Amino acid sequence: MRLALGLAARGLGNVWPNPAVGCVIVKDGRIVGRGWTQPGGRPHAEIRALAQAGAAAQGATVYVTLEPCAHHGKTPPCAEALVAANVARVVTALEDPDPRVKGAGHAKLRAAGIAVSEGVLEGQARAAQAGFLTRITKARPWIALKLATSFDGRIATASGESQWITSPQARAHVHALRAQFDAVMVGGGTARADDPLLTVRHFHPKRAPVRVVASKALDLPRKVLAGSVDQAPLWVLHGPDAPVEARGFWCGVGAELIEVPVDKQNLDLKSAMEALGARGLTRVFCEGGGAFGAALLRQGVVDELIGYTAGLALGSEGRAGLGALGLDRLGDAPRFDLVESRAIGGDLYHRWLRHTQA
Amino acid sequence: MRLALGLAARGLGNVWPNPAVGCVIVKDGRIVGRGWTQPGGRPHAEIRALAQAGAAAQGATVYVTLEPCAHHGKTPPCAEALVAANVARVVTALEDPDPRVKGAGHAKLRAAGIAVSEGVLEGQARAAQAGFLTRITKARPWIALKLATSFDGRIATASGESQWITSPQARAHVHALRAQFDAVMVGGGTARADDPLLTVRHFHPKRAPVRVVASKALDLPRKVLAGSVDQAPLWVLHGPDAPVEARGFWCGVGAELIEVPVDKQNLDLKSAMEALGARGLTRVFCEGGGAFGAALLRQGVVDELIGYTAGLALGSEGRAGLGALGLDRLGDAPRFDLVESRAIGGDLYHRWLRHTQA
Repeated sequence: MRLALGLAARGLGNVWPNPAVGCVIVKDGRIVGRGWTQPGGRPHAEIRALAQAGAAAQGATVYVTLEPCAHHGKTPPCAEALVAANVARVVTALEDPDPRVKGAGHAKLRAAGIAVSEGVLEGQARAAQAGFLTRITKARPWIALKLATSFDGRIATASGESQWITSPQARAHVHALRAQFDAVMVGGGTARADDPLLTVRHFHPKRAPVRVVASKALDLPRKVLAGSVDQAPLWVLHGPDAPVEARGFWCGVGAELIEVPVDKQNLDLKSAMEALGARGLTRVFCEGGGAFGAALLRQGVVDELIGYTAGLALGSEGRAGLGALGLDRLGDAPRFDLVESRAIGGDLYHRWLRHTQA
Repeated sequence: MRLALGLAARGLGNVWPNPAVGCVIVKDGRIVGRGWTQPGGRPHAEIRALAQAGAAAQGATVYVTLEPCAHHGKTPPCAEALVAANVARVVTALEDPDPRVKGAGHAKLRAAGIAVSEGVLEGQARAAQAGFLTRITKARPWIALKLATSFDGRIATASGESQWITSPQARAHVHALRAQFDAVMVGGGTARADDPLLTVRHFHPKRAPVRVVASKALDLPRKVLAGSVDQAPLWVLHGPDAPVEARGFWCGVGAELIEVPVDKQNLDLKSAMEALGARGLTRVFCEGGGAFGAALLRQGVVDELIGYTAGLALGSEGRAGLGALGLDRLGDAPRFDLVESRAIGGDLYHRWLRHTQA
């Protein structure tokens, strides 16, 4: 199952709206088939592993990181393929929470006389599938917020100088992370200030992450983003009052426009994230700026914090990495638990998950 | 030598103005003596190890983390004691940069026919003796600056609520660190805002660190600090214009007053640190607040940054952990290299050393 989880990870960022699943088939102590969800979400991991195993699948044990599907979607159900291949035993990590499956895959296998063990390494599978699970249970993608700052939490000097605070290695690491997400998202402020390309560089993902920009009034710089729609999809979230001319421009260059409601002068980011979930995104990597990050935290939709801390101090006159949160009490501050930290190119990389009450 | 370095570390914070030295004596493959500098700086490590070895020292090999002293200070020179004990060989990590020694210890040993090897694990010894070496080479103590902040670099909410941002484990870790320093230092702002005791709690150091407060006008809260001079020494740095009444009060309760010059409206912290070095301090742990930390960074006297980052966000309206640095360019920012990071009680602990050009 550990190996199957490793295979599953190869699909992260490439398989939305499907889950990234891994599958290993073992016969007489030897691995006869390995598979993982392919770019675009099909074929499924089990189908790939069964194809590799061929006749050896008969009487074999199948390890798969998620309950095999039981419904006819764009592909025939994997549970039926496993039954047809005459496997002896199926070991899964997790029941599929998708209402179209939810135990039906396990039941179909058992009905065919196949031995089924569930819940093996469930915790690890749950963490690895967090995007897929969040989309099913919260109707929105898993949201990671990245913050790359100086030792004292600043992202630029008072004069706005910000290139570069973190090391080339840390910046390359950000691109590697982008490739594992379905989408990379920024607020309109960052789009206007940095005019970023938001594509993955240094690495070559099988499927380019969707670029998402949130801009209430649709007042975005046009050259860089519009000139690169052939490199990666561009989705723009805007409010109901966005000018018709701007809508026309972005529509014309091939961007997907998504209108979301406004709440207290700002885009309602919870609705925005639900709109992204409805379009199939399971993992969204948010990169700033400070006002956008603060809005995400205020609206309680940040599942993961990813920090890069550089070994330099910019002082209180430098620009803050995070905007205002409007907290009255320390007890109201959004809390996260540390899960990982290490050095990357002289900077400190750290990753936190939203704190959940035990 | 690795073992000797481990023994040396036991003296950190206890032995100023002397260096924390470790010594191991080996005879026929067995350890016959171990010693480290004792609280207050005497007896020296070699003397303790020789006493433990007794007659077994004859013909033995002595591993010592610093060149044995050759001058008559408050104790007779260790080099002479090693000669008298008839040891066969002495292995050292570092030449003692103290002008009264500086090779004279090694020379005295060689003149007596003892084989001497120098520079074994020199890098590690240099790092361990950083306080002692800084005091000799820069005429001031080694300065560590601690910053315990939220994920976004804040130390309190807008309303001033700050208890507690970091975990009890991280706060206990701070006390363990204090015990390894000769002194704990804060600026007047923190003294007025928090009225801190500045003693070591949870741990029982052999020698309580000196408490140092920098206050230009000597306007400090009196109850907590003055009421605890029996628990740990209290040194107060002030400017030339500090009122006579305040001087009288602090003098009267047993604090040591140290007048330092003022530079551009603020205490000249470089002079202040030199004054602390002249009084024998080798390692000073600075704990804030933000204005004091920024002043230390501006004046270029911070050798080590110690960070505790808690997994919560306070937003840009929270109080900054570091004050203004007056930087014009990113290239002028003080830079540090990461040497260590790990989780402590859910918080992220990280340690950095001042960046030195290769």
